Amino acid sequence: MSASLCRRALAEAVGSVALVAVVVGSGIQATELSRDVGVQLLANSLATVFGLGVLIALLGPVSGAHFNPLVTLAAWFKGRRADEGFPLRDVAAYVPAQISGAIAGAVLADAMFGKPLVQWSTRDRSAGHLLLGEIVATSGLILLIFGLARVGRTHLAPVAVASYIGAAYWFTSSTSFANPAVTIGRAFTGTFAGIAPASVAPFVAAQAVGAVLGLALMAALFGPEAPPQDETSPEQAESELAAPAVP
Amino acid sequence: MSASLCRRALAEAVGSVALVAVVVGSGIQATELSRDVGVQLLANSLATVFGLGVLIALLGPVSGAHFNPLVTLAAWFKGRRADEGFPLRDVAAYVPAQISGAIAGAVLADAMFGKPLVQWSTRDRSAGHLLLGEIVATSGLILLIFGLARVGRTHLAPVAVASYIGAAYWFTSSTSFANPAVTIGRAFTGTFAGIAPASVAPFVAAQAVGAVLGLALMAALFGPEAPPQDETSPEQAESELAAPAVP
Amino acid sequence: MSASLCRRALAEAVGSVALVAVVVGSGIQATELSRDVGVQLLANSLATVFGLGVLIALLGPVSGAHFNPLVTLAAWFKGRRADEGFPLRDVAAYVPAQISGAIAGAVLADAMFGKPLVQWSTRDRSAGHLLLGEIVATSGLILLIFGLARVGRTHLAPVAVASYIGAAYWFTSSTSFANPAVTIGRAFTGTFAGIAPASVAPFVAAQAVGAVLGLALMAALFGPEAPPQDETSPEQAESELAAPAVP
Amino acid sequence: MSASLCRRALAEAVGSVALVAVVVGSGIQATELSRDVGVQLLANSLATVFGLGVLIALLGPVSGAHFNPLVTLAAWFKGRRADEGFPLRDVAAYVPAQISGAIAGAVLADAMFGKPLVQWSTRDRSAGHLLLGEIVATSGLILLIFGLARVGRTHLAPVAVASYIGAAYWFTSSTSFANPAVTIGRAFTGTFAGIAPASVAPFVAAQAVGAVLGLALMAALFGPEAPPQDETSPEQAESELAAPAVP
Repeated sequence: MSASLCRRALAEAVGSVALVAVVVGSGIQATELSRDVGVQLLANSLATVFGLGVLIALLGPVSGAHFNPLVTLAAWFKGRRADEGFPLRDVAAYVPAQISGAIAGAVLADAMFGKPLVQWSTRDRSAGHLLLGEIVATSGLILLIFGLARVGRTHLAPVAVASYIGAAYWFTSSTSFANPAVTIGRAFTGTFAGIAPASVAPFVAAQAVGAVLGLALMAALFGPEAPPQDETSPEQAESELAAPAVP
Repeated sequence: MSASLCRRALAEAVGSVALVAVVVGSGIQATELSRDVGVQLLANSLATVFGLGVLIALLGPVSGAHFNPLVTLAAWFKGRRADEGFPLRDVAAYVPAQISGAIAGAVLADAMFGKPLVQWSTRDRSAGHLLLGEIVATSGLILLIFGLARVGRTHLAPVAVASYIGAAYWFTSSTSFANPAVTIGRAFTGTFAGIAPASVAPFVAAQAVGAVLGLALMAALFGPEAPPQDETSPEQAESELAAPAVP
Repeated sequence: MSASLCRRALAEAVGSVALVAVVVGSGIQATELSRDVGVQLLANSLATVFGLGVLIALLGPVSGAHFNPLVTLAAWFKGRRADEGFPLRDVAAYVPAQISGAIAGAVLADAMFGKPLVQWSTRDRSAGHLLLGEIVATSGLILLIFGLARVGRTHLAPVAVASYIGAAYWFTSSTSFANPAVTIGRAFTGTFAGIAPASVAPFVAAQAVGAVLGLALMAALFGPEAPPQDETSPEQAESELAAPAVP
Repeated sequence: MSASLCRRALAEAVGSVALVAVVVGSGIQATELSRDVGVQLLANSLATVFGLGVLIALLGPVSGAHFNPLVTLAAWFKGRRADEGFPLRDVAAYVPAQISGAIAGAVLADAMFGKPLVQWSTRDRSAGHLLLGEIVATSGLILLIFGLARVGRTHLAPVAVASYIGAAYWFTSSTSFANPAVTIGRAFTGTFAGIAPASVAPFVAAQAVGAVLGLALMAALFGPEAPPQDETSPEQAESELAAPAVP
């Protein structure tokens, strides 16, 4: 493993710690301060919008700021036939970093608020319509991330991806986990943002379905990708998501 | 119908599905979580700001991101005498895509929250002052969209149009539907964001009046359009709203 | 009066109508939907942030987007010795447009919500510490608007000025009117955002003191202005605030 | 002390006055208007996001917009071996300006709301998990500020740093003071945002630990800094944080 891949995996781990700490921590703070669940979710979603946007702006140039195994797998899938695609070796480094980071983020949030460090969530999220919510949430996320690259607007990713999650907190019934690593991490906390371990597998399965749907939707909306030609082609811009920009 | 127009109409349909799913879905989530209607509308409006901005950023380069028959008609009207205007054939493809997408978006939101897929809204919105609200809301929207092109700031459209709708949710008495397709779609849901079918026609009529007013206001504020001259003229920028940027 | 000054004064009038309609209208909507005054002011301030930012982005290139007699007077004062300064003739056109627009905006908001079109506010705002709030609010606004030009960041004005007002709603005791035209307009509505006519004159006087203080603070912070030299000098950028960019 | 350093120290003082006035003032307003502490912190955090972003946009080009002794010290530490680093003499001017400004900001906020000008806070914030919150908050802040420079995105600092603080209000248990000057200033007000004098020293110590951790994290994530080479190197961009851009 090259030093560069090490640093990129570290960035994925640190970003995942921070992302889950923001989601779980702001959920705890919100439930401690308000009894109106609408106000709680407003605080939780706005804190996530602010935090996620910052993480993508800061770590995107290092690792691509995936923080999400399905984004990493989709990056590999889309580039699997290209010379400069996202290699499987990187997938093997990114995904464990994301999952362990997400778990650490939940533990850190619990620690910051004086809660038990690990407490399995008892929050059942198994209703069928929640799974439809996860399918919609994840398909939209994948469509957005890779679609922005197709239209040459990767520079908007920090604000666009964060805004998308802010909307999806509210318009999907599942409050948009849309991320297997985050879903696993959130099982480790018995607080507002938790998810019962028994609900994790169905959520992750629904997210995978959503990711496939998102890639199909992208192909339908943006058409086949043209072969890379010059420096300003959309493919170039897209590669910024996966390639390290910091030497 | 060329493949390109197909893809653009698909983008209008997908964008309209997503827009109405965001509006209706976040309305359901908000009413399930809070009993303070102010908090509900805060959540509903912020989710719409986040979602609409993302949709315009992502799909603007494909179809112009109209998602609104009156925007499409205004684009045709403004370019009706120009060689490179927005042709009637495109209007005939966009408008049905927008309306059917909007209906599908309401059904999707209901499905995500385990509600009956179609349930006519019983929310009467027929008071006269609400129609004045729609006139104001739509005139401002049209003035903004086409005015941004006149001042060469089309690149601000995602954040500006989304912000405008966020303000108009609150400052107009009708909470700013400002869109016939969205209005029709919202008649299909018996939830927070619904509108009784009997209120749809007056709303759409008021919106049409507002669109005409908006075009008049634009002419008064920005003066007659100069003939296109060079690559960086405002007219060029404006055409980005209607022309596909993805090959 | 040249056609160009006509159109610029019209832009000031339309912008002032819209600004006060946003402030007053969102205040009415908020009080109708929530009984928590904190939620009401959250909605009121967020709607104003969204609306004001849009107005500056759209109308800035036409008239400078002052919407505020003290900004217009400060523009004249700062350029009074320069050949290309903001002339007194323009002040004489802008200020009446701003004041009449602001009054019309209050009437329009009342009309949209089915309220009496004109009703003097009974909301007393005469406490001394509120006047200190207005001094602080206005000095910060003037410092920001003209300071952004000094550091060559006029392009940030839409989001920066709107954000400033969003903060000032909360951190000043007076909720930051900071604008004589808006203050006069808000006397015409008996709703949430109103101000008793007897409180108008002290508010305007405090705002004038704040404007002078803001100009003094700007001189202290940014030093004497260098003579204009080339196309990209800060002075050039600053002139965008006052000069029409639309032919 | 050169005139230039004078002006930069003044900018640090004025910015610190404004920052603490925003934090304390919006806290007072929020507690006067709502009894839901969640709504209070929403208002407090959003006002801070808006205000801090504006201050960095306006004063960044003058002084670097530190407003924070730990940021100033970290700037000195990072550049201590470089010819163009941030000199100790500037540290000696910045830090007193920041602390006295922060105290003045608390007094100003109290004055605007008709409170006693100085009243020691009785709000105990000594629980151990709050100190962990401060360590996390400050390490993230330092990582962000200097990391943005490493990835060449210093132009995003106003929105990114403000957004970070908006998230950290919620996801850290301490509501993210993350700033010794602000912490000292907030001890002078007996209101919502206050901190008991006895809690100040532990908070500042935790912040110092966080700053060291943030610098270590930055080295791990972004690797050793390359020697400066050309005009567009990240080091150049970084220096914008410390060097005056206004002549």
